[in-house]
Amino acid sequence: MVEQVGIIGLGLIGGSLARRLNERGIDVTAWNHRPHPYAAACAEGIRCVDTLRELVAAGPQVLVLCNPLKAMPAILDELQPLLAAHPEITLTDVGSVKGMVREQVEQAGLGEWYVGAHPMAGNELSGWTAADPSLYDGALWAITVDANTAYERFLAVAELIVEDCGNRLIVLDDATHDRAAGLISHMPHVVATSLINELVGNRDRNIAAALAAGSWRDMTRVALTDPNRTRAMVEEDRVNVEHLLRSMAERLTAVADELRDGDADALGDFFTEGQPFRDYKAAKGQDGGELAIPEHGWRQALLESARRGEAIIGFIDEHTVRLRVHAM
Amino acid sequence: MVEQVGIIGLGLIGGSLARRLNERGIDVTAWNHRPHPYAAACAEGIRCVDTLRELVAAGPQVLVLCNPLKAMPAILDELQPLLAAHPEITLTDVGSVKGMVREQVEQAGLGEWYVGAHPMAGNELSGWTAADPSLYDGALWAITVDANTAYERFLAVAELIVEDCGNRLIVLDDATHDRAAGLISHMPHVVATSLINELVGNRDRNIAAALAAGSWRDMTRVALTDPNRTRAMVEEDRVNVEHLLRSMAERLTAVADELRDGDADALGDFFTEGQPFRDYKAAKGQDGGELAIPEHGWRQALLESARRGEAIIGFIDEHTVRLRVHAM
Repeated sequence: MVEQVGIIGLGLIGGSLARRLNERGIDVTAWNHRPHPYAAACAEGIRCVDTLRELVAAGPQVLVLCNPLKAMPAILDELQPLLAAHPEITLTDVGSVKGMVREQVEQAGLGEWYVGAHPMAGNELSGWTAADPSLYDGALWAITVDANTAYERFLAVAELIVEDCGNRLIVLDDATHDRAAGLISHMPHVVATSLINELVGNRDRNIAAALAAGSWRDMTRVALTDPNRTRAMVEEDRVNVEHLLRSMAERLTAVADELRDGDADALGDFFTEGQPFRDYKAAKGQDGGELAIPEHGWRQALLESARRGEAIIGFIDEHTVRLRVHAM
Repeated sequence: MVEQVGIIGLGLIGGSLARRLNERGIDVTAWNHRPHPYAAACAEGIRCVDTLRELVAAGPQVLVLCNPLKAMPAILDELQPLLAAHPEITLTDVGSVKGMVREQVEQAGLGEWYVGAHPMAGNELSGWTAADPSLYDGALWAITVDANTAYERFLAVAELIVEDCGNRLIVLDDATHDRAAGLISHMPHVVATSLINELVGNRDRNIAAALAAGSWRDMTRVALTDPNRTRAMVEEDRVNVEHLLRSMAERLTAVADELRDGDADALGDFFTEGQPFRDYKAAKGQDGGELAIPEHGWRQALLESARRGEAIIGFIDEHTVRLRVHAM
């Protein structure tokens, strides 16, 4: 259990996290670049401070960066001398692209303090007024670690997620995280945007829009959200998104060729290829037993566990976790 | 107002239509290839008959083909001699691809009787047990006509939709309909299927599936439905889908190139290109006034009206309609 947590940034994700932790009895101190959420946050029992110095002085075991990416370099530079005096504090974040955040943290000289984290939680809203502790209900987080990550720091962030938030987690390296996030989020956002561009470029766009039903609505919903936010997310993960878009273009072209050629066998394969995912969605997660985390090679052991579809749902002791498994 | 309607096929779409019309006081006679829904349908007041001969003899003004496409040729062959003796009956259908149905109808010698129709209603279920009159709540239908369509037959189907069902409609030619349906439904189904194939083909598929959140769930929902049904729909509209898939592949490849080249201007254009659709979704439909349908050139006048984003919501007289408009 992490008893004291510091939150940097009371937007949608940080505000919701602060409220969830506070609700669950954790001592939460928060800083925001503007004080407008402070009255409401204080009324709920969240302690609000005016400077990062005061935030660090409040003695959090874990400090969570929930600020916008563009504010990251300035905040990290200000934190560096403060954390240099407090090696016991672990630094984490909630960003949706991990490689880039670690680079910024290392450039600021804070690599040793840092464990990456990414809660799979959010919606189309933003800001403190949209903050809602239930955003984290049933959420899964990815933690990212590298060869320099101390096991104790991993443990602090993992306990914050599993015990303080009551959530599940998987442990990855940054590259695996960013490839997977590119596949299930960043690339699909480009696909959704391409769909609405295809419609807008059609001379019968009003007819097509009139005929649009559930499938179109669902597949283009994310293209209706702030395109600047989507663009920033895509550019942060540009290498993976580029690769995935080329792969998708090849798949679509292959189906176009099969339709032209009347290639029934290949079309049949195309429509059955995804069956493991259909079966996965139809199944439920199950008890995955316990995992003893080895002292040496713990990162690889946890990555392999994630690859098997296992998620950590609790700690039995500092080196043994309870798992839930949901796999293809 | 159409007083008497015949329904061929009591599956999800036909059963829901029969129940909606019956609820709204229309005299509905139905035939199904197997009699299992008859007891329940009769109990609601829908007359059920054992043969298509009896169905035609019941004297419907409009006969609606709601049978599966694969049963279409046999049903049309059986209907031909029956309808030859009843030129006052108008034949329509509810298929999602219009060009192919008209070809089959013409091959059966029933082109003169026929007006195409496609209600934008449905869900992932099927069969009479899933039939639900509220499926048509607020639905928009496309009617498709060609150079041989008599105005009176268009009028009969249009009144069935607007007055009997209480729905909206737009009037198109088959080709325009099938291109638009390809854009907003058939092609996106292939895209969704490609997304799940991309995931299944990834060695970190369990990790990606674990991280998947709302955007992935919405964009792949239609790929979880019966892949055989999706495949049939795509193959029926193969020329349009092929063209649209190549266009999408080009769009995705262009973004991949822009990400590789760091082409900020082109990326900016990509993310703003769809703004007219975002604005359209944020707006509501409005009163579109009246439209006097010209005696000559009525098909083109109604197609142009649809292109302007207008839908017919009522008849003032046989040549004047009330419109609602929602346009980009």
